[in-house]
Amino acid sequence: MRAVIPFKRTNAKSRLSPLLSGKEREELAMAMLNDVTEALLGSGCFEVIDVLSTSIIEVRGVNIVLTDKGLNEALNEYLQKMTSHSINEPVLIIMADIPLVSTGNIRDITSSPADIVIAPGRMGGTNALFIRDPSSFRVDYYGASFLKHNDIASRNGLKIEVFDSFNLSTDIDEVADLAEVLLHGKGHASRYLEKLGLGFARNIGRVGIKRV
Amino acid sequence: MRAVIPFKRTNAKSRLSPLLSGKEREELAMAMLNDVTEALLGSGCFEVIDVLSTSIIEVRGVNIVLTDKGLNEALNEYLQKMTSHSINEPVLIIMADIPLVSTGNIRDITSSPADIVIAPGRMGGTNALFIRDPSSFRVDYYGASFLKHNDIASRNGLKIEVFDSFNLSTDIDEVADLAEVLLHGKGHASRYLEKLGLGFARNIGRVGIKRV
Repeated sequence: MRAVIPFKRTNAKSRLSPLLSGKEREELAMAMLNDVTEALLGSGCFEVIDVLSTSIIEVRGVNIVLTDKGLNEALNEYLQKMTSHSINEPVLIIMADIPLVSTGNIRDITSSPADIVIAPGRMGGTNALFIRDPSSFRVDYYGASFLKHNDIASRNGLKIEVFDSFNLSTDIDEVADLAEVLLHGKGHASRYLEKLGLGFARNIGRVGIKRV
Repeated sequence: MRAVIPFKRTNAKSRLSPLLSGKEREELAMAMLNDVTEALLGSGCFEVIDVLSTSIIEVRGVNIVLTDKGLNEALNEYLQKMTSHSINEPVLIIMADIPLVSTGNIRDITSSPADIVIAPGRMGGTNALFIRDPSSFRVDYYGASFLKHNDIASRNGLKIEVFDSFNLSTDIDEVADLAEVLLHGKGHASRYLEKLGLGFARNIGRVGIKRV
């Protein structure tokens, strides 16, 4: 079984720019990536873990595969190459910005009997996608990818499971999302935000984020 | 085992008023409540299901307990009354605005061996709270209640489990939250929104909501 993580460091997480500088956003993106790779490594489920990166980075215990392609093109080329090299093993595509993911989550999603397992992000995203047979599926991210991936699976006659996880649903895109890392995180991203002096503004109904 | 749902119909869900009229918000609140009570009833876990309501309502298969108290006061009085009547059984406090909850979620959360199980809402909320011994705990909702409930459990030496569920984390407060009901819902609330003609605006990155 293998895992693939698409990753972009340069100008990462632009919607966090109201709070974080470009350098801080890149460092946070790397911290979140390390949380994800450690969950994958800790699960013991994978022979191969590939990070498809648009820039040269170093991450412990995984392969860095450089690409200059966009998200869909890079991932579909990856699935296509597996097929053309007759590597017919299950693959987990997982986003780099879900730092709450646990080893238990990874074990659970990869032990599903379904053909396709989709862990939804909020607002129709796809944060993890387990594909039992990579020759049978192509990805279509952006917008309501949850619906698109359901459609693609249905059209190919594949049995789908929706994976119910708050951890996996929590992708970090906007300033408000950082609250979830501070509230629930225990890893690199959480420590990085604390190091930056980020804290809660508790007086606004739901929890907010400010520099303390 | 028993379940308690605090509920307010009058001027319910005021943050949905940019999209829904007062009557529509009340009807949506009732539809969501019915989704929650059906998940509870379907789980087969409870001898008693009480809805603590500020107005007279009818819901199939559950008791309506009228109260004019606020959320914390009503729930703590409920726990206190259980204790003073020597009703020492586990209780699940669950919010009325989490229409994605499934019978499987209910069975899983109530079968935890922990003293306290907290299903977080987004941004520090508490959407479900399983209390094994009601004499040992008091609730403190509003603001970062997830942190407060963790603190209360720790102070009382209680073993806590955080329940990882996207379904349970998805409380419906704001217009954007309605997208989750349309994307993932299969029950009363989802059908009600469709009846109102609500649909997706897919052209804004994440999915949005509009009247179609």
